[in-house]
Amino acid sequence: MRLAALRVGQGDDSALHLQTSDGFASVDALARSAGLSHLEGLRDVGELYALGGGALDDLRELSPDAQTSIVNEEARFAPPVRRPSKIVCVGLNYMDHITESGGTRPERIVLFAKFPNCLVGHREAVRLPSITKELDYEGELAVVIGRRTSGVGADDALSAIGGFTVINDVSARDLQIAEAQWIRGKSLDTFAPLGPVVLDAHSAPPIESMTIRTYVNGELRQDASCSLMITPVAELIAHISAAITLEPGDIIATGTPSGVALGMKPPIYLKDGDTMTVSIDAIGELTNLVVAS
Amino acid sequence: MRLAALRVGQGDDSALHLQTSDGFASVDALARSAGLSHLEGLRDVGELYALGGGALDDLRELSPDAQTSIVNEEARFAPPVRRPSKIVCVGLNYMDHITESGGTRPERIVLFAKFPNCLVGHREAVRLPSITKELDYEGELAVVIGRRTSGVGADDALSAIGGFTVINDVSARDLQIAEAQWIRGKSLDTFAPLGPVVLDAHSAPPIESMTIRTYVNGELRQDASCSLMITPVAELIAHISAAITLEPGDIIATGTPSGVALGMKPPIYLKDGDTMTVSIDAIGELTNLVVAS
Repeated sequence: MRLAALRVGQGDDSALHLQTSDGFASVDALARSAGLSHLEGLRDVGELYALGGGALDDLRELSPDAQTSIVNEEARFAPPVRRPSKIVCVGLNYMDHITESGGTRPERIVLFAKFPNCLVGHREAVRLPSITKELDYEGELAVVIGRRTSGVGADDALSAIGGFTVINDVSARDLQIAEAQWIRGKSLDTFAPLGPVVLDAHSAPPIESMTIRTYVNGELRQDASCSLMITPVAELIAHISAAITLEPGDIIATGTPSGVALGMKPPIYLKDGDTMTVSIDAIGELTNLVVAS
Repeated sequence: MRLAALRVGQGDDSALHLQTSDGFASVDALARSAGLSHLEGLRDVGELYALGGGALDDLRELSPDAQTSIVNEEARFAPPVRRPSKIVCVGLNYMDHITESGGTRPERIVLFAKFPNCLVGHREAVRLPSITKELDYEGELAVVIGRRTSGVGADDALSAIGGFTVINDVSARDLQIAEAQWIRGKSLDTFAPLGPVVLDAHSAPPIESMTIRTYVNGELRQDASCSLMITPVAELIAHISAAITLEPGDIIATGTPSGVALGMKPPIYLKDGDTMTVSIDAIGELTNLVVAS
Protein backbone atom coordinates (compact mmCIF):
# COMPACT_ATOMS: atom_id res chain seq x y z
CA MET A 1 0.00 0.00 0.00
CA ARG A 2 1.27 3.43 -1.01
CA LEU A 3 -0.27 6.67 0.28
CA ALA A 4 0.02 10.21 -1.06
CA ALA A 5 -1.26 13.64 -0.08
CA LEU A 6 -2.51 15.21 -3.28
CA ARG A 7 -3.36 18.87 -3.66
CA VAL A 8 -7.03 19.31 -4.50
CA GLY A 9 -8.88 22.45 -5.50
CA GLN A 10 -7.28 25.84 -4.99
CA GLY A 11 -4.99 26.99 -2.22
CA ASP A 12 -3.09 24.81 0.15
CA ASP A 13 -5.60 21.97 0.61
CA SER A 14 -4.63 18.35 0.24
CA ALA A 15 -6.41 15.03 0.56
CA LEU A 16 -5.08 11.58 1.36
CA HIS A 17 -5.01 9.21 -1.61
CA LEU A 18 -4.18 5.54 -2.15
CA GLN A 19 -1.99 4.65 -5.09
CA THR A 20 -3.65 2.28 -7.56
CA SER A 21 -2.34 0.49 -10.64
CA ASP A 22 -2.73 3.59 -12.83
CA GLY A 23 -3.15 6.56 -10.50
CA PHE A 24 -4.60 7.56 -7.15
CA ALA A 25 -7.93 6.90 -5.45
CA SER A 26 -9.43 9.30 -2.93
CA VAL A 27 -9.37 7.81 0.56
CA ASP A 28 -12.27 10.09 1.42
CA ALA A 29 -14.43 8.58 -1.36
CA LEU A 30 -13.38 5.03 -0.52
CA ALA A 31 -14.17 5.61 3.15
CA ARG A 32 -17.61 6.98 2.35
CA SER A 33 -18.45 3.97 0.18
CA ALA A 34 -17.26 1.60 2.88
CA GLY A 35 -19.01 3.44 5.71
CA LEU A 36 -15.70 4.12 7.48
CA SER A 37 -16.43 7.67 8.61
CA HIS A 38 -13.27 7.92 10.74
CA LEU A 39 -11.24 7.72 7.52
CA GLU A 40 -13.09 10.64 5.88
CA GLY A 41 -11.52 14.06 5.48
CA LEU A 42 -7.90 13.04 6.05
CA ARG A 43 -5.42 15.46 4.50
CA ASP A 44 -2.18 13.55 4.81
CA VAL A 45 -0.43 10.51 6.20
CA GLY A 46 0.31 12.27 9.49
CA GLU A 47 -3.41 12.68 10.19
CA LEU A 48 -3.97 9.00 9.34
CA TYR A 49 -1.26 7.79 11.71
CA ALA A 50 -2.57 10.06 14.46
CA LEU A 51 -5.82 8.05 14.40
CA GLY A 52 -3.97 4.96 15.62
CA GLY A 53 -3.27 1.49 14.30
CA GLY A 54 -6.90 0.46 13.90
CA ALA A 55 -7.49 3.12 11.28
CA LEU A 56 -4.50 1.92 9.31
CA ASP A 57 -5.79 -1.66 9.47
CA ASP A 58 -9.16 -0.46 8.17
CA LEU A 59 -7.48 1.36 5.32
CA ARG A 60 -5.51 -1.73 4.37
CA GLU A 61 -8.82 -3.59 3.89
CA LEU A 62 -10.04 -1.15 1.24
CA SER A 63 -9.43 -2.25 -2.34
CA PRO A 64 -8.81 0.80 -4.44
CA ASP A 65 -7.77 -0.81 -7.69
CA ALA A 66 -11.19 -0.52 -9.26
CA GLN A 67 -11.41 3.17 -8.38
CA THR A 68 -9.00 5.75 -9.72
CA SER A 69 -9.92 9.38 -9.24
CA ILE A 70 -6.70 10.99 -10.44
CA VAL A 71 -4.33 9.63 -13.06
CA ASN A 72 -0.67 9.76 -12.24
CA GLU A 73 0.30 12.51 -14.68
CA GLU A 74 -2.32 14.88 -13.29
CA ALA A 75 -1.53 14.32 -9.62
CA ARG A 76 -0.24 17.39 -7.77
CA PHE A 77 1.75 16.13 -4.82
CA ALA A 78 1.96 17.75 -1.42
CA PRO A 79 4.50 16.29 0.98
CA PRO A 80 2.82 13.07 2.25
CA VAL A 81 3.17 14.44 5.78
CA ARG A 82 2.30 18.13 5.78
CA ARG A 83 3.24 19.20 9.27
CA PRO A 84 5.25 16.69 11.29
CA SER A 85 5.99 17.75 14.85
CA LYS A 86 9.62 17.15 14.00
CA ILE A 87 12.04 16.17 11.26
CA VAL A 88 15.00 14.41 12.86
CA CYS A 89 17.97 14.07 10.53
CA VAL A 90 20.96 11.78 10.86
CA GLY A 91 24.32 13.08 9.69
CA LEU A 92 27.36 11.13 8.56
CA ASN A 93 25.67 7.72 8.52
CA TYR A 94 27.45 6.30 5.42
CA MET A 95 31.25 5.86 5.54
CA ASP A 96 31.83 6.87 1.90
CA HIS A 97 29.98 10.15 2.50
CA ILE A 98 32.08 10.86 5.59
CA THR A 99 35.22 10.29 3.52
CA GLU A 100 34.10 12.50 0.64
CA SER A 101 33.22 15.24 3.18
CA GLY A 102 36.80 15.12 4.48
CA GLY A 103 35.78 13.87 7.93
CA THR A 104 36.29 10.87 10.12
CA ARG A 105 33.71 8.56 11.59
CA PRO A 106 32.09 10.36 14.55
CA GLU A 107 32.16 8.67 17.94
CA ARG A 108 28.47 9.39 18.48
CA ILE A 109 25.43 9.35 16.25
CA VAL A 110 25.06 12.83 14.68
CA LEU A 111 21.52 14.22 14.86
CA PHE A 112 20.29 17.53 13.53
CA ALA A 113 16.96 19.11 12.70
CA LYS A 114 15.12 20.51 9.73
CA PHE A 115 12.09 22.71 10.36
CA PRO A 116 8.73 21.87 8.68
CA ASN A 117 8.91 24.99 6.46
CA CYS A 118 11.33 22.91 4.39
CA LEU A 119 8.75 20.43 3.18
CA VAL A 120 7.60 20.41 -0.44
CA GLY A 121 6.06 17.66 -2.53
CA HIS A 122 7.17 15.73 -5.60
CA ARG A 123 7.46 18.02 -8.66
CA GLU A 124 7.33 21.17 -6.51
CA ALA A 125 10.11 23.75 -6.77
CA VAL A 126 13.16 23.92 -4.53
CA ARG A 127 13.97 27.59 -4.26
CA LEU A 128 17.58 28.70 -4.50
CA PRO A 129 17.87 31.96 -2.55
CA SER A 130 20.63 34.49 -3.10
CA ILE A 131 22.03 33.95 0.42
CA THR A 132 23.69 30.70 -0.67
CA LYS A 133 26.10 29.97 -3.50
CA GLU A 134 26.55 26.30 -2.63
CA LEU A 135 23.26 24.44 -2.99
CA ASP A 136 23.59 20.67 -2.64
CA TYR A 137 21.35 17.58 -2.68
CA GLU A 138 21.29 14.55 -0.36
CA GLY A 139 19.13 11.58 -1.35
CA GLU A 140 17.93 9.65 1.70
CA LEU A 141 15.51 7.05 2.97
CA ALA A 142 12.93 8.69 5.26
CA VAL A 143 11.12 6.80 7.98
CA VAL A 144 7.64 8.00 8.95
CA ILE A 145 6.81 7.21 12.57
CA GLY A 146 3.46 5.44 12.93
CA ARG A 147 2.72 5.79 16.63
CA ARG A 148 3.87 7.68 19.71
CA THR A 149 7.20 6.12 20.66
CA SER A 150 9.35 6.68 23.71
CA GLY A 151 12.20 4.59 25.04
CA VAL A 152 11.79 1.72 22.58
CA GLY A 153 14.55 -0.87 22.39
CA ALA A 154 16.27 -1.62 19.08
CA ASP A 155 14.62 -5.07 19.00
CA ASP A 156 11.13 -3.53 18.90
CA ALA A 157 11.97 -0.26 17.16
CA LEU A 158 10.91 -1.23 13.64
CA SER A 159 7.34 -1.61 14.89
CA ALA A 160 7.26 2.16 15.46
CA ILE A 161 7.51 2.74 11.71
CA GLY A 162 4.30 3.53 9.86
CA GLY A 163 5.92 3.69 6.45
CA PHE A 164 8.84 4.70 4.31
CA THR A 165 9.31 7.56 1.88
CA VAL A 166 12.06 9.42 0.05
CA ILE A 167 13.59 12.70 1.22
CA ASN A 168 16.06 15.06 -0.39
CA ASP A 169 17.97 16.76 2.43
CA VAL A 170 18.78 19.88 0.41
CA SER A 171 21.65 21.80 2.01
CA ALA A 172 23.29 25.22 1.66
CA ARG A 173 26.89 24.10 2.23
CA ASP A 174 28.33 27.60 2.67
CA LEU A 175 25.86 28.37 5.47
CA GLN A 176 26.13 24.89 6.99
CA ILE A 177 29.92 25.04 7.17
CA ALA A 178 30.26 28.69 8.21
CA GLU A 179 27.79 28.30 11.07
CA ALA A 180 28.67 25.81 13.80
CA GLN A 181 25.07 24.66 14.10
CA TRP A 182 23.66 23.32 10.84
CA ILE A 183 20.04 24.29 11.32
CA ARG A 184 19.96 27.37 9.07
CA GLY A 185 21.89 25.83 6.18
CA LYS A 186 19.57 22.82 6.36
CA SER A 187 16.23 24.58 6.95
CA LEU A 188 15.76 27.20 4.28
CA ASP A 189 12.23 27.17 2.84
CA THR A 190 11.64 24.25 0.41
CA PHE A 191 14.83 22.43 1.48
CA ALA A 192 13.07 19.10 2.20
CA PRO A 193 11.30 17.57 -0.78
CA LEU A 194 9.42 14.51 0.53
CA GLY A 195 7.52 11.76 -1.25
CA PRO A 196 5.96 11.15 -3.66
CA VAL A 197 4.31 8.40 -1.60
CA VAL A 198 4.62 6.64 1.74
CA LEU A 199 5.07 2.89 1.37
CA ASP A 200 3.23 1.11 4.19
CA ALA A 201 5.66 -0.65 6.52
CA HIS A 202 3.56 -3.84 6.31
CA SER A 203 4.26 -4.19 2.60
CA ALA A 204 7.85 -2.90 2.57
CA PRO A 205 10.85 -5.05 1.75
CA PRO A 206 13.74 -5.18 4.26
CA ILE A 207 15.48 -1.82 4.58
CA GLU A 208 18.83 -3.45 3.74
CA SER A 209 17.48 -4.39 0.32
CA MET A 210 16.64 -0.80 -0.63
CA THR A 211 18.93 1.24 -2.87
CA ILE A 212 19.12 5.04 -3.03
CA ARG A 213 19.92 6.63 -6.40
CA THR A 214 20.12 10.37 -6.99
CA TYR A 215 20.23 11.96 -10.43
CA VAL A 216 20.96 15.58 -11.35
CA ASN A 217 19.73 16.47 -14.84
CA GLY A 218 19.60 12.73 -15.55
CA GLU A 219 23.19 12.04 -14.48
CA LEU A 220 23.60 9.42 -11.74
CA ARG A 221 25.31 11.00 -8.73
CA GLN A 222 24.45 8.74 -5.78
CA ASP A 223 23.97 4.97 -5.90
CA ALA A 224 24.18 3.04 -2.64
CA SER A 225 22.48 0.31 -0.69
CA CYS A 226 20.72 1.23 2.55
CA SER A 227 22.57 -1.77 4.03
CA LEU A 228 25.61 0.55 4.19
CA MET A 229 24.17 2.71 6.97
CA ILE A 230 26.65 2.87 9.87
CA THR A 231 23.80 2.92 12.40
CA PRO A 232 20.83 0.95 11.09
CA VAL A 233 17.29 2.27 11.32
CA ALA A 234 16.22 0.22 14.36
CA GLU A 235 19.16 1.53 16.38
CA LEU A 236 18.50 5.08 15.20
CA ILE A 237 14.92 4.92 16.45
CA ALA A 238 16.04 3.43 19.78
CA HIS A 239 18.69 6.12 20.19
CA ILE A 240 16.38 9.02 19.36
CA SER A 241 13.41 7.76 21.36
CA ALA A 242 15.56 7.23 24.45
CA ALA A 243 15.54 11.00 24.83
CA ILE A 244 12.97 12.46 22.48
CA THR A 245 9.39 11.17 22.26
CA LEU A 246 8.47 10.51 18.65
CA GLU A 247 4.94 11.31 17.45
CA PRO A 248 2.86 9.84 14.61
CA GLY A 249 3.96 11.48 11.37
CA ASP A 250 7.42 12.43 12.61
CA ILE A 251 10.09 12.05 9.95
CA ILE A 252 13.54 10.53 10.43
CA ALA A 253 15.93 11.23 7.55
CA THR A 254 18.43 8.38 7.83
CA GLY A 255 21.49 9.94 6.20
CA THR A 256 22.93 10.22 2.72
CA PRO A 257 25.50 8.06 0.93
CA SER A 258 28.41 9.46 -1.10
CA GLY A 259 28.02 11.38 -4.32
CA VAL A 260 26.89 14.82 -3.16
CA ALA A 261 28.23 17.94 -4.88
CA LEU A 262 30.36 18.79 -1.83
CA GLY A 263 32.37 15.63 -2.47
CA MET A 264 33.14 16.36 -6.14
CA LYS A 265 36.49 17.86 -7.12
CA PRO A 266 35.65 20.58 -7.84
CA PRO A 267 32.09 20.62 -6.44
CA ILE A 268 29.36 21.20 -9.00
CA TYR A 269 26.67 22.85 -6.93
CA LEU A 270 23.05 23.09 -8.04
CA LYS A 271 21.91 26.02 -10.17
CA ASP A 272 18.67 27.49 -11.43
CA GLY A 273 16.94 25.04 -13.75
CA ASP A 274 18.60 21.86 -12.47
CA THR A 275 16.40 18.81 -11.94
CA MET A 276 17.03 16.48 -9.00
CA THR A 277 15.56 12.99 -8.77
CA VAL A 278 15.97 10.75 -5.75
CA SER A 279 14.83 7.19 -6.31
CA ILE A 280 14.34 4.24 -3.99
CA ASP A 281 13.02 1.34 -6.07
CA ALA A 282 10.56 -0.02 -3.57
CA ILE A 283 9.06 3.40 -2.83
CA GLY A 284 9.21 5.72 -5.83
CA GLU A 285 10.96 8.63 -7.49
CA LEU A 286 11.05 12.12 -6.02
CA THR A 287 11.76 14.81 -8.63
CA ASN A 288 12.19 18.54 -8.00
CA LEU A 289 13.29 21.50 -10.06
CA VAL A 290 15.70 24.11 -8.69
CA VAL A 291 14.36 27.63 -9.19
CA ALA A 292 16.37 30.77 -8.32
CA SER A 293 14.37 33.06 -6.05
CA MET B 1 -3.52 41.50 27.91
CA ARG B 2 -2.06 38.19 29.08
CA LEU B 3 -3.15 34.85 27.65
CA ALA B 4 -2.68 31.35 29.02
CA ALA B 5 -3.51 27.82 27.90
CA LEU B 6 -4.96 26.10 30.95
CA ARG B 7 -5.50 22.37 31.24
CA VAL B 8 -9.17 21.59 31.65
CA GLY B 9 -10.83 18.27 32.45
CA GLN B 10 -8.89 15.06 32.13
CA GLY B 11 -6.20 14.14 29.65
CA ASP B 12 -4.25 16.50 27.50
CA ASP B 13 -6.95 19.11 26.75
CA SER B 14 -6.36 22.80 27.23
CA ALA B 15 -8.39 25.95 26.69
CA LEU B 16 -7.31 29.51 26.04
CA HIS B 17 -7.80 31.85 28.99
CA LEU B 18 -7.39 35.57 29.60
CA GLN B 19 -5.64 36.65 32.77
CA THR B 20 -7.80 38.84 35.02
CA SER B 21 -7.04 40.70 38.22
CA ASP B 22 -7.39 37.58 40.36
CA GLY B 23 -7.25 34.61 38.01
CA PHE B 24 -8.19 33.49 34.53
CA ALA B 25 -11.35 33.84 32.45
CA SER B 26 -12.32 31.32 29.79
CA VAL B 27 -12.00 32.85 26.32
CA ASP B 28 -14.56 30.31 25.16
CA ALA B 29 -17.15 31.57 27.65
CA LEU B 30 -16.36 35.23 26.93
CA ALA B 31 -16.66 34.62 23.20
CA ARG B 32 -20.03 32.90 23.61
CA SER B 33 -21.38 35.81 25.66
CA ALA B 34 -20.12 38.30 23.10
CA GLY B 35 -21.35 36.33 20.09
CA LEU B 36 -17.82 35.98 18.71
CA SER B 37 -18.08 32.38 17.53
CA HIS B 38 -14.70 32.46 15.78
CA LEU B 39 -13.07 32.81 19.20
CA GLU B 40 -14.80 29.73 20.62
CA GLY B 41 -12.98 26.46 21.21
CA LEU B 42 -9.42 27.82 21.05
CA ARG B 43 -6.95 25.63 22.89
CA ASP B 44 -3.88 27.85 22.95
CA VAL B 45 -2.27 31.05 21.76
CA GLY B 46 -1.01 29.40 18.59
CA GLU B 47 -4.55 28.64 17.47
CA LEU B 48 -5.56 32.24 18.22
CA TYR B 49 -2.73 33.72 16.17
CA ALA B 50 -3.49 31.34 13.30
CA LEU B 51 -6.89 33.06 12.98
CA GLY B 52 -5.22 36.31 11.97
CA GLY B 53 -5.00 39.83 13.35
CA GLY B 54 -8.74 40.50 13.32
CA ALA B 55 -9.36 37.77 15.88
CA LEU B 56 -6.76 39.24 18.17
CA ASP B 57 -8.36 42.69 17.85
CA ASP B 58 -11.72 41.17 18.76
CA LEU B 59 -10.22 39.49 21.79
CA ARG B 60 -8.67 42.75 22.97
CA GLU B 61 -12.18 44.26 23.04
CA LEU B 62 -13.45 41.69 25.54
CA SER B 63 -13.37 42.81 29.15
CA PRO B 64 -12.72 39.80 31.32
CA ASP B 65 -12.22 41.47 34.67
CA ALA B 66 -15.76 40.84 35.81
CA GLN B 67 -15.51 37.17 34.96
CA THR B 68 -13.03 34.84 36.57
CA SER B 69 -13.53 31.16 36.01
CA ILE B 70 -10.32 29.85 37.56
CA VAL B 71 -8.41 31.41 40.41
CA ASN B 72 -4.68 31.63 40.05
CA GLU B 73 -3.76 28.98 42.59
CA GLU B 74 -5.97 26.38 40.90
CA ALA B 75 -4.81 27.03 37.36
CA ARG B 76 -3.04 24.12 35.68
CA PHE B 77 -0.86 25.60 32.98
CA ALA B 78 -0.11 24.02 29.63
CA PRO B 79 2.54 25.73 27.53
CA PRO B 80 0.73 28.78 26.07
CA VAL B 81 1.61 27.48 22.60
CA ARG B 82 1.08 23.72 22.55
CA ARG B 83 2.53 22.77 19.17
CA PRO B 84 4.49 25.46 17.38
CA SER B 85 5.73 24.49 13.94
CA LYS B 86 9.17 25.43 15.18
CA ILE B 87 11.16 26.60 18.18
CA VAL B 88 14.11 28.65 16.92
CA CYS B 89 16.74 29.25 19.58
CA VAL B 90 19.53 31.81 19.58
CA GLY B 91 22.84 30.81 21.14
CA LEU B 92 25.54 33.04 22.60
CA ASN B 93 23.54 36.26 22.43
CA TYR B 94 24.82 37.82 25.70
CA MET B 95 28.54 38.62 26.02
CA ASP B 96 28.80 37.62 29.69
CA HIS B 97 27.35 34.21 28.90
CA ILE B 98 29.85 33.71 26.07
CA THR B 99 32.65 34.55 28.48
CA GLU B 100 31.41 32.23 31.24
CA SER B 101 31.08 29.44 28.63
CA GLY B 102 34.76 29.89 27.74
CA GLY B 103 34.03 31.06 24.20
CA THR B 104 34.52 34.10 22.06
CA ARG B 105 31.91 36.18 20.30
CA PRO B 106 30.82 34.27 17.18
CA GLU B 107 31.12 35.98 13.80
CA ARG B 108 27.60 34.92 12.86
CA ILE B 109 24.34 34.66 14.73
CA VAL B 110 24.11 31.16 16.25
CA LEU B 111 20.77 29.45 15.68
CA PHE B 112 19.71 26.03 16.88
CA ALA B 113 16.45 24.14 17.33
CA LYS B 114 14.43 22.56 20.07
CA PHE B 115 11.70 20.09 19.12
CA PRO B 116 8.12 20.61 20.39
CA ASN B 117 8.31 17.51 22.62
CA CYS B 118 10.29 19.80 24.95
CA LEU B 119 7.37 22.02 25.85
CA VAL B 120 5.83 21.91 29.32
CA GLY B 121 3.81 24.50 31.19
CA HIS B 122 4.38 26.48 34.36
CA ARG B 123 4.52 24.21 37.45
CA GLU B 124 4.93 21.07 35.30
CA ALA B 125 7.88 18.76 35.90
CA VAL B 126 11.17 18.89 34.01
CA ARG B 127 12.34 15.32 33.84
CA LEU B 128 15.99 14.54 34.51
CA PRO B 129 16.79 11.34 32.62
CA SER B 130 19.70 9.07 33.49
CA ILE B 131 21.43 9.77 30.15
CA THR B 132 22.65 13.16 31.42
CA LYS B 133 24.66 14.09 34.50
CA GLU B 134 24.86 17.79 33.68
CA LEU B 135 21.38 19.33 33.65
CA ASP B 136 21.40 23.12 33.33
CA TYR B 137 18.89 25.97 33.09
CA GLU B 138 18.82 29.00 30.78
CA GLY B 139 16.30 31.76 31.50
CA GLU B 140 15.28 33.58 28.33
CA LEU B 141 12.80 35.96 26.77
CA ALA B 142 10.66 34.11 24.21
CA VAL B 143 9.00 35.83 21.28
CA VAL B 144 5.79 34.32 19.94
CA ILE B 145 5.30 35.04 16.24
CA GLY B 146 1.87 36.49 15.49
CA ARG B 147 1.59 36.09 11.73
CA ARG B 148 3.25 34.35 8.81
CA THR B 149 6.51 36.22 8.24
CA SER B 150 9.05 35.87 5.45
CA GLY B 151 11.81 38.25 4.44
CA VAL B 152 10.86 41.03 6.84
CA GLY B 153 13.34 43.88 7.33
CA ALA B 154 14.58 44.77 10.80
CA ASP B 155 12.62 48.04 10.67
CA ASP B 156 9.31 46.18 10.40
CA ALA B 157 10.24 43.00 12.24
CA LEU B 158 8.70 43.84 15.62
CA SER B 159 5.27 43.91 13.94
CA ALA B 160 5.62 40.16 13.39
CA ILE B 161 5.48 39.57 17.15
CA GLY B 162 2.18 38.46 18.63
CA GLY B 163 3.41 38.43 22.19
CA PHE B 164 6.15 37.68 24.68
CA THR B 165 6.59 34.87 27.14
CA VAL B 166 9.27 33.26 29.28
CA ILE B 167 11.22 30.15 28.32
CA ASN B 168 13.70 28.01 30.21
CA ASP B 169 16.07 26.52 27.62
CA VAL B 170 16.93 23.47 29.73
CA SER B 171 20.12 21.85 28.49
CA ALA B 172 22.01 18.59 29.03
CA ARG B 173 25.53 20.04 28.87
CA ASP B 174 27.32 16.70 28.62
CA LEU B 175 25.27 15.71 25.56
CA GLN B 176 25.39 19.20 24.07
CA ILE B 177 29.17 19.42 24.32
CA ALA B 178 29.98 15.82 23.36
CA GLU B 179 27.81 15.98 20.23
CA ALA B 180 28.78 18.55 17.61
CA GLN B 181 25.16 19.36 16.89
CA TRP B 182 23.26 20.57 19.96
CA ILE B 183 19.82 19.25 19.08
CA ARG B 184 19.76 16.17 21.32
CA GLY B 185 21.20 17.88 24.40
CA LYS B 186 18.65 20.66 23.93
CA SER B 187 15.58 18.60 22.98
CA LEU B 188 15.05 15.94 25.59
CA ASP B 189 11.40 15.62 26.61
CA THR B 190 10.27 18.47 28.94
CA PHE B 191 13.39 20.59 28.24
CA ALA B 192 11.41 23.73 27.30
CA PRO B 193 9.18 25.07 30.07
CA LEU B 194 7.19 27.95 28.54
CA GLY B 195 4.84 30.50 30.07
CA PRO B 196 2.98 30.95 32.29
CA VAL B 197 1.33 33.55 30.05
CA VAL B 198 1.85 35.35 26.75
CA LEU B 199 1.90 39.12 27.14
CA ASP B 200 0.23 40.74 24.13
CA ALA B 201 2.74 42.75 22.09
CA HIS B 202 0.35 45.73 22.05
CA SER B 203 0.58 46.10 25.81
CA ALA B 204 4.23 45.17 26.25
CA PRO B 205 6.93 47.59 27.40
CA PRO B 206 10.05 47.99 25.24
CA ILE B 207 12.13 44.81 25.14
CA GLU B 208 15.20 46.73 26.34
CA SER B 209 13.39 47.52 29.59
CA MET B 210 12.78 43.85 30.43
CA THR B 211 14.97 42.02 32.94
CA ILE B 212 15.50 38.25 33.14
CA ARG B 213 16.04 36.73 36.57
CA THR B 214 16.52 33.03 37.20
CA TYR B 215 16.39 31.42 40.64
CA VAL B 216 17.34 27.89 41.66
CA ASN B 217 15.82 26.86 44.99
CA GLY B 218 15.24 30.56 45.65
CA GLU B 219 18.86 31.58 44.99
CA LEU B 220 19.34 34.25 42.32
CA ARG B 221 21.52 32.84 39.52
CA GLN B 222 20.80 35.05 36.49
CA ASP B 223 19.95 38.76 36.55
CA ALA B 224 20.35 40.72 33.33
CA SER B 225 18.65 43.29 31.19
CA CYS B 226 17.37 42.24 27.76
CA SER B 227 19.10 45.39 26.49
CA LEU B 228 22.33 43.38 26.69
CA MET B 229 21.42 41.11 23.77
CA ILE B 230 24.21 41.19 21.17
CA THR B 231 21.69 40.90 18.33
CA PRO B 232 18.43 42.58 19.30
CA VAL B 233 15.06 40.94 18.65
CA ALA B 234 14.17 42.91 15.50
CA GLU B 235 17.42 41.87 13.85
CA LEU B 236 16.97 38.27 14.95
CA ILE B 237 13.55 38.11 13.29
CA ALA B 238 14.90 39.72 10.12
CA HIS B 239 17.83 37.29 10.03
CA ILE B 240 15.71 34.18 10.60
CA SER B 241 12.87 35.18 8.27
CA ALA B 242 15.32 35.92 5.45
CA ALA B 243 15.70 32.17 5.09
CA ILE B 244 13.02 30.46 7.13
CA THR B 245 9.34 31.40 6.92
CA LEU B 246 7.95 31.95 10.40
CA GLU B 247 4.40 30.82 11.20
CA PRO B 248 1.88 32.07 13.77
CA GLY B 249 2.76 30.53 17.13
CA ASP B 250 6.40 29.91 16.29
CA ILE B 251 8.70 30.52 19.24
CA ILE B 252 12.03 32.36 19.15
CA ALA B 253 14.12 31.87 22.29
CA THR B 254 16.36 34.94 22.28
CA GLY B 255 19.36 33.66 24.25
CA THR B 256 20.40 33.49 27.88
CA PRO B 257 22.55 35.87 29.93
CA SER B 258 25.31 34.74 32.30
CA GLY B 259 24.73 32.76 35.47
CA VAL B 260 24.06 29.24 34.20
CA ALA B 261 25.48 26.25 36.06
CA LEU B 262 28.01 25.61 33.28
CA GLY B 263 29.64 28.94 34.13
CA MET B 264 30.05 28.27 37.86
CA LYS B 265 33.39 27.06 39.22
CA PRO B 266 32.72 24.27 39.87
CA PRO B 267 29.37 23.91 38.07
CA ILE B 268 26.43 23.06 40.31
CA TYR B 269 24.16 21.19 37.95
CA LEU B 270 20.48 20.63 38.64
CA LYS B 271 19.38 17.59 40.62
CA ASP B 272 16.16 15.81 41.51
CA GLY B 273 13.96 18.07 43.61
CA ASP B 274 15.45 21.41 42.53
CA THR B 275 13.06 24.23 41.73
CA MET B 276 13.82 26.63 38.86
CA THR B 277 12.05 29.97 38.46
CA VAL B 278 12.60 32.27 35.50
CA SER B 279 11.07 35.70 35.93
CA ILE B 280 10.58 38.61 33.55
CA ASP B 281 8.75 41.35 35.47
CA ALA B 282 6.48 42.50 32.68
CA ILE B 283 5.42 38.96 31.80
CA GLY B 284 5.44 36.64 34.80
CA GLU B 285 7.26 33.88 36.65
CA LEU B 286 7.83 30.43 35.21
CA THR B 287 8.48 27.81 37.90
CA ASN B 288 9.33 24.14 37.32
CA LEU B 289 10.45 21.28 39.52
CA VAL B 290 13.24 18.92 38.43
CA VAL B 291 12.18 15.28 38.78
CA ALA B 292 14.55 12.37 38.17
CA SER B 293 13.05 9.91 35.71
